[in-house]
Amino acid sequence: MSEVISKSTAAQRAATVMNRLTTSQKNEALVLIADALVAEQAPIIAANEEDLARGRDNGTSPALLDRLKLTPARLKDISDAVRQIVELPDPVGDLLDSFERPNGLRIEKRRVPLGVIGIVYEARPNVTVDAATLCLKSGNAVVLRGGSAALSSNKQIIAVIRDALSRSAVPSDAVQLIEDSSRASVDEMLKLNGLLDVIIPRGGASLIQNVVQNATVPVIETGAGVCHTFIDESADYGMAEAIALNAKVQRPSVCNSMETLLVHDRFAGRYLAELAEAFRNANVELRGCETTIAFVPWATLATEQDFATEYNDYILNVKVVKDVDDALAHIARFGTKHSECIVTANDAIAERFLQEVDAAAVYHNASTRFTDGFEFGFGAEIGISTQKLHARGPMGLPALTSTKFKVVGNGQIRG
Amino acid sequence: MSEVISKSTAAQRAATVMNRLTTSQKNEALVLIADALVAEQAPIIAANEEDLARGRDNGTSPALLDRLKLTPARLKDISDAVRQIVELPDPVGDLLDSFERPNGLRIEKRRVPLGVIGIVYEARPNVTVDAATLCLKSGNAVVLRGGSAALSSNKQIIAVIRDALSRSAVPSDAVQLIEDSSRASVDEMLKLNGLLDVIIPRGGASLIQNVVQNATVPVIETGAGVCHTFIDESADYGMAEAIALNAKVQRPSVCNSMETLLVHDRFAGRYLAELAEAFRNANVELRGCETTIAFVPWATLATEQDFATEYNDYILNVKVVKDVDDALAHIARFGTKHSECIVTANDAIAERFLQEVDAAAVYHNASTRFTDGFEFGFGAEIGISTQKLHARGPMGLPALTSTKFKVVGNGQIRG
Repeated sequence: MSEVISKSTAAQRAATVMNRLTTSQKNEALVLIADALVAEQAPIIAANEEDLARGRDNGTSPALLDRLKLTPARLKDISDAVRQIVELPDPVGDLLDSFERPNGLRIEKRRVPLGVIGIVYEARPNVTVDAATLCLKSGNAVVLRGGSAALSSNKQIIAVIRDALSRSAVPSDAVQLIEDSSRASVDEMLKLNGLLDVIIPRGGASLIQNVVQNATVPVIETGAGVCHTFIDESADYGMAEAIALNAKVQRPSVCNSMETLLVHDRFAGRYLAELAEAFRNANVELRGCETTIAFVPWATLATEQDFATEYNDYILNVKVVKDVDDALAHIARFGTKHSECIVTANDAIAERFLQEVDAAAVYHNASTRFTDGFEFGFGAEIGISTQKLHARGPMGLPALTSTKFKVVGNGQIRG
Repeated sequence: MSEVISKSTAAQRAATVMNRLTTSQKNEALVLIADALVAEQAPIIAANEEDLARGRDNGTSPALLDRLKLTPARLKDISDAVRQIVELPDPVGDLLDSFERPNGLRIEKRRVPLGVIGIVYEARPNVTVDAATLCLKSGNAVVLRGGSAALSSNKQIIAVIRDALSRSAVPSDAVQLIEDSSRASVDEMLKLNGLLDVIIPRGGASLIQNVVQNATVPVIETGAGVCHTFIDESADYGMAEAIALNAKVQRPSVCNSMETLLVHDRFAGRYLAELAEAFRNANVELRGCETTIAFVPWATLATEQDFATEYNDYILNVKVVKDVDDALAHIARFGTKHSECIVTANDAIAERFLQEVDAAAVYHNASTRFTDGFEFGFGAEIGISTQKLHARGPMGLPALTSTKFKVVGNGQIRG
């Protein structure tokens, strides 16, 4: 039996226990994990040093090495994040609907855990703790398949978590780490219908596309964001500049940052040169349509491919559009249905934009950077769903649950 | 451009219009469809005759020919079902959540259409009308791929529906029929990410498995039901017999009918022989465990494969179990997470069963045959989901929607 099958089978057995646990039992286990991540920081940091040394030998970039690195301060933050999950309401058991039928059947629809969740992700070892504890809080078992760059760190973190769980009501087998870092172990997870109830990919576009294209297990797609900000004719210049700059440069590397700025031609005539200067001062490279270049001679010409690209970098496409219809058409063609914004003083146009744009989150006069479980007040986030089924947009704990109908009768049969 | 791509592209364009329609506009279109299905019954029945004649030439069984057959009375029923959909509340626009953040952002979560729904189904032409009108009412466009046996009927029905829509605010292109009845057209739909938002298979196990195994478009899995009834020690005999018989024979061909009866050994000692006679009188073949055969000598020995089989027929597996744990273990191993029932007078044991069985619907003292959108009072049913994501159990109109976060600010940026 392969590692993937044996560990997933153990997780499935643990899931039947998880389904019966109280919120207190789960929270006590999470507190033990939070404590252990600080108490056992020495072996975790030692293991992390192995990953960092291997990374340096392999020529990994300083930026990536920094993302990989664990310090006592970072472990404290990770531990504190687990304590925040303890404070969140437990979605399991929530009554979503309740009704009685004319024949006397009493029907309740309640939240239940999904069962066993597979997470396929890349390097950052904080995801290991985050994903595991969110799954546990929502009553699920989890099978983690992290990237090889963090394998030593992940193994030690999981050893600490499973040891903490052994002193709790949560079975240690509810958390599994796949140590085989070959592509084959991912491929095996993707086809594990019957053992895994869902797979959630977290990482870059190629990781996510591999999961979406090859999984037969249901997937919650996360990630890709080619997000737009449309500055309408009536927008206030100061507000428009602040929102557009924030959407691009506050953290360019993430999925809810802006990749393309759409500017109404009358606004462009008055303000585009000034706005472009603000981006130049923020070290943003501009790629524009021909009209843009007429206003901003230092911009380069954007290609069709540019408009479809998630740069995650200090690069911005700019396109001058005729009106909101033109903006809507561009977004429908190039958007990834993640987060889209209009800046306007015209409420009727804003309402059209909010209604007609097909995206997880649509904004009027606020930065797309707010598409985030914490910013929405969910208290946690397992990812941002870019699909339309099950969950859309930032996913908190309820996104990690399913439902069950409980039907109580007194002998009813169907006529 | 293939038929599948050109028609799906047209559906996607229509979906952007559907998203803007009012409930009244959609209902007016549905009434025109209901009227037309009766007014245009002559060409529909003539087309259906072609399918029936081809079926007879191909040696199709009388039972299947009967399912395929349309009569004026059946068309009246199909038309009346469309009028019932008119009466149902429109889920689109429903406010699911609404909150204001400390920074003043106002966030609403509202239901929106899924977009373009692909339906892959088998012979019965009533599904063509049913699926199309449920998708329209929920604001979606639909691409239908029915079976070749009903192709002439489906073509004529869709021509009538599209003609009716041409006199309404709903674009005719919101309803598309794929006429290519080769396997290739299904395979093409399954990979049509970006044009189809979801695929719902309706039909037998092999159709559903082909979709689940090969689709990269998100799927809502429906269908397979290996459902159990567990008669506990304390069950009232009369109630137990009535529920078990109803679950098996009221309509054996459907997914919520019972395939395996689990009997507590103390109940078996008193009543199994009598219960078996009741099934024999209803022409049900019994396949039992060895203990069952000691009580019911005319039963044959059930194999492992039998316990895993959805017969959809007058055949029943019977297994004598020690207690509720034994029953739970059997269901966990052989159940398909569809509908499971316990008959007991012991509320504590009933509660354990309702809590611990992992299924879309769990019953205490009522027949599994109630797992149905109409019986649950949803007024309609696009299918019964046997997966855990998005929708589980009977799916009414809300299962055909997604959500969107609408965020309104006054210049908020992220710090």
